[in-house]
Amino acid sequence: MLNDIHSPEDLKKLPANQLPQLAEEIRNEIISVTSQKGGHVSPNLGVIELSIALHRVFNTPKDKIIFDVSHQCYTHKLLTGRNNEHFQNLRQTGGISGFCNRGESEHDAFGAGHAGTALSAALGFAAARDRNETSENVIAVVGDAALTNGVSLEALNNISTTTKKMIVVLNDNKMSIAKNVGAISKHLNNIITNPYYNRLYNDMNEFLKKVVGDSAVIANEKLHEKVKSLVLPSSVFENVGMLYIGPIDGHDIPTLERYLQYCKNANKPILLHIVTKKGKGLPVAEKNPEKFHGASPYNTETGESLSNDKSIPNYQDVFGKALLKFAQNDKKIVGITAAMASGTGMSFLKKELPSQFYDVGIAEEHAAVFAAGLACNNVKPVVAIYSTFMQRAYDCAMHDVCLQNLPVVFCMDRAGLSPNDGATHHGLFDISFLRSLPNAVIMQPSNEDELTDMLWTSIQAKIPAFIRYPRGKAEGVEIKQTPAMLEIGKAKELRKSDGKICIWALGNMVKEAIITADAIKAECGVEVGVVDARFVKPLDTELLLKHADENVAIVTLEDHVKMGGFGSAVAECLIENNKKNKLEIIAWPDKYIPHGTDVATLRNQFGLGREQIIEKVKALL
Amino acid sequence: MLNDIHSPEDLKKLPANQLPQLAEEIRNEIISVTSQKGGHVSPNLGVIELSIALHRVFNTPKDKIIFDVSHQCYTHKLLTGRNNEHFQNLRQTGGISGFCNRGESEHDAFGAGHAGTALSAALGFAAARDRNETSENVIAVVGDAALTNGVSLEALNNISTTTKKMIVVLNDNKMSIAKNVGAISKHLNNIITNPYYNRLYNDMNEFLKKVVGDSAVIANEKLHEKVKSLVLPSSVFENVGMLYIGPIDGHDIPTLERYLQYCKNANKPILLHIVTKKGKGLPVAEKNPEKFHGASPYNTETGESLSNDKSIPNYQDVFGKALLKFAQNDKKIVGITAAMASGTGMSFLKKELPSQFYDVGIAEEHAAVFAAGLACNNVKPVVAIYSTFMQRAYDCAMHDVCLQNLPVVFCMDRAGLSPNDGATHHGLFDISFLRSLPNAVIMQPSNEDELTDMLWTSIQAKIPAFIRYPRGKAEGVEIKQTPAMLEIGKAKELRKSDGKICIWALGNMVKEAIITADAIKAECGVEVGVVDARFVKPLDTELLLKHADENVAIVTLEDHVKMGGFGSAVAECLIENNKKNKLEIIAWPDKYIPHGTDVATLRNQFGLGREQIIEKVKALL
Repeated sequence: MLNDIHSPEDLKKLPANQLPQLAEEIRNEIISVTSQKGGHVSPNLGVIELSIALHRVFNTPKDKIIFDVSHQCYTHKLLTGRNNEHFQNLRQTGGISGFCNRGESEHDAFGAGHAGTALSAALGFAAARDRNETSENVIAVVGDAALTNGVSLEALNNISTTTKKMIVVLNDNKMSIAKNVGAISKHLNNIITNPYYNRLYNDMNEFLKKVVGDSAVIANEKLHEKVKSLVLPSSVFENVGMLYIGPIDGHDIPTLERYLQYCKNANKPILLHIVTKKGKGLPVAEKNPEKFHGASPYNTETGESLSNDKSIPNYQDVFGKALLKFAQNDKKIVGITAAMASGTGMSFLKKELPSQFYDVGIAEEHAAVFAAGLACNNVKPVVAIYSTFMQRAYDCAMHDVCLQNLPVVFCMDRAGLSPNDGATHHGLFDISFLRSLPNAVIMQPSNEDELTDMLWTSIQAKIPAFIRYPRGKAEGVEIKQTPAMLEIGKAKELRKSDGKICIWALGNMVKEAIITADAIKAECGVEVGVVDARFVKPLDTELLLKHADENVAIVTLEDHVKMGGFGSAVAECLIENNKKNKLEIIAWPDKYIPHGTDVATLRNQFGLGREQIIEKVKALL
Repeated sequence: MLNDIHSPEDLKKLPANQLPQLAEEIRNEIISVTSQKGGHVSPNLGVIELSIALHRVFNTPKDKIIFDVSHQCYTHKLLTGRNNEHFQNLRQTGGISGFCNRGESEHDAFGAGHAGTALSAALGFAAARDRNETSENVIAVVGDAALTNGVSLEALNNISTTTKKMIVVLNDNKMSIAKNVGAISKHLNNIITNPYYNRLYNDMNEFLKKVVGDSAVIANEKLHEKVKSLVLPSSVFENVGMLYIGPIDGHDIPTLERYLQYCKNANKPILLHIVTKKGKGLPVAEKNPEKFHGASPYNTETGESLSNDKSIPNYQDVFGKALLKFAQNDKKIVGITAAMASGTGMSFLKKELPSQFYDVGIAEEHAAVFAAGLACNNVKPVVAIYSTFMQRAYDCAMHDVCLQNLPVVFCMDRAGLSPNDGATHHGLFDISFLRSLPNAVIMQPSNEDELTDMLWTSIQAKIPAFIRYPRGKAEGVEIKQTPAMLEIGKAKELRKSDGKICIWALGNMVKEAIITADAIKAECGVEVGVVDARFVKPLDTELLLKHADENVAIVTLEDHVKMGGFGSAVAECLIENNKKNKLEIIAWPDKYIPHGTDVATLRNQFGLGREQIIEKVKALL
């Protein structure tokens, strides 16, 4: 049946009684593809029925459905002409993106990858509709976790004073509520478990089943408000001027359609609270929705990851275990995550030392300022935020941490590529936005042992520290029992040059530098120098200028964009000291890098492939 | 009396009946000093009584008072050893800062200048207190406007789940409420005007006057919750798990002391809602609190600014008038401000074309994403955000605007120094954080006519545009009747060099470049070339490489930090093209620049003085 759906029009032609079968087919397709290609499993299995109902009630591309984060867009994509080979190459080079993307389809009204933007964007769409005097519906689909985010909350404050017509579908993943944090989650949970609410909405559901037509719906809206004000505690949403409806079962397509139809006709901004089950229909995901939030290829029965190489740890686990070890020996050390305990490796601390762990929700700004407050009081905060999400906390890094020179350690995982996720998730800008901040110390380890040393050094040195490291496997080197205290701002010379070329490599690119040096040695007999730069700021200008004086050509190699990156720092130093060495900066170009099958594919595509690097360095001879 | 107060201990010794006189003396001192030196007049006149009450009930530096934005800290400073000559040199070189500053006094628990951080920081202090098992009180003082900010709202969501003891004083500037925007303001206003609330709190006030001792206070807390749940609509704050008390009169010292004492003993996070009058005691400020929010020296009777040169307009007014003119001729153009209509010059649009104007509150992130949503729908948004506050919207600029290549025009006033405000307000980082974003077009005009051209060009070109320009006076040049469409990425060569030196200057530094060229011509007879770079990105590499080929020494001159700035872009270009020209980058050093008397003083202090620039350029000969 799914194969015959080429557009939402085809979906609308289906009789209602065939929809459960369609949902089943979609569920199977999502499980089949994600189990082979990886992807956001649990969020997508939770919104199949919602997506079907949305596309039956509304008409995209005229109507605008804006998905928050948009990692839950798979059914939407399957229903809007992107099934079969498009979907089967999900998140691969040449295949479709795992997120909404305006360039990919006119049905994708707004792209996203970071949480919390849908309400603001949808309000922009609604305000534009009001200005343009057109009639499209605007629907934001937002998860409960994203409501803890500042951008969402700023938008909530503006909705009722900006437009009279906008629909927010709050997708409340019942299973994850207990794990969500903060007062808003508690508030939602109170609503769900409040018998008055449930009884009222059951009654209302019955009532709506009987009524047809706009006048009845409008009359009901008034009744609804009246009844509710008598028996129910008001919700946060009513305090911000929205009509609140719910909670309703987010897996019951007829009910969803009926309520969405009601919302479509409402003349007030409306919040429809639906309850869904993350991972629904895949037992292993229902049991462990966090693990299956974003998963690599997996066995659909056991849930086990299909990646067979368990010998080399991921950077996130190295970080998480090192933090736990340090925190066990120093009660002043605390870990802070913005709803990413598992992804950042902080789950070890969470499990073993919960009293030294804070999850603040998807609230990167609060995480950073909260850490600054702790750091003023002899507590040692380590904040783990993916490089790309650190962009959210940029002002806090500048205004609260670095300006006050407070000892907060930021650990930025996913610095470099997140290949299957693409442009919203690559961490390619952090050096350029952090390097100009006075007092900031920025570093990147070349292997897991150095990461451990850097974490240790950062905590001990009482500095505003930013450690960046990539997604995925570390190098497989042994981690010392006792970490070393590194000298801040000192690089490590791994190979001396014979006077022709020296590569200054940062972090995971040190390995590439060594491979390049080996290749050139083998082919041309030239000893290429290799430096593990370690620190972007302060830069080891002493060693750099020594090399400059040796008259070698200098190559910089980094997993970051060229503009304002590590190479730019090296260039500034050479220029400031009036050195005329040839300098070759090898870094990512000034383009948004899309998703792709893997790191190697994307590197080759954008000039950072292994052979390409060797050629660029050889060209200097 | 004020002269005899050297610490909060002295304040505590005063009998209660002398406090009104002290408040009067403080009011006179604030008016006297700000009328000569400028400063945040209205916010400080509004919190004199609150600050006195806080310092009588609590004991700093042990207890921690954290002021949001902290522009309302003048009374706090006067009461904590910074009166007389300290205060009389407020915001001047060598004098005290207009904001809280940890380096200035142990009574300043946390520094700030941007709105919305106090709740997060205070929660960090409270959590640290809980961890350290100490007993200090933590009090955040927050304005109602700051509650519309995402950082505040993220923190609100975390307070009740993180600590059992923290006091938030919500300073609600009654006069400004009507002008504040969004649902939260409406909600606060509903509370204030609700007769049930007022009656209850009058009764409670009477009750508290009679009771003494903790047990009575605790009993009352229970009574309070019980009574309120029967008769009152619940507040946003109760939905997030805080005890809400108020509103009370923020100018009545005995009442404030009584309630603060009550808060001090509460065993639940508590929000005390006080109502104050911005500008209280200075009639011209009471009448026009927005004008006197941050004022330059003024006549205390008439309120008129003492600046006598009205012939040259400020950049903000040039921008505001140009935007109005363009918007009058194109209904698709809209202006968006984050609570800064007056400061950004958008008040012209607000007054003349309110339907083409949005004030979203102190919500820079929402402003940017909302603009992105509008831009998807054939609306032409112009967003005015000070350079330093643009840091808040960095992720939105990356993830929502530039990644989707949407035509949003950001106008960043206060790029460069905000000399009296200091480190939190200088706009010295915007190039470094924006330049690495693909699709971003970044420019700076050298005068007001070029600003008008750039605004026009940016709107017409349908690009993600970032226009930076400084605080204060433009150059006094005539503005063309019809703006010119500039070629994106093209610099303007103002003077040709005679082959020795060429200065590439950006924006307001073009004037300095010309002065430098004149001085060198006069002294050495050398014709120094001068280029008005106009665009930081895309850089005019064609002209730059032409100059490079002429073998001149190149000087870059910018009002921005050196790291990752305009000079760095020039360096990258020269290196990429293997040019060996001498390059001198003149820019702000890698330090947080403090406040100072004026731009010239700070430039001289940090190597950017007029003579210093001439010397640096001459040294290249």
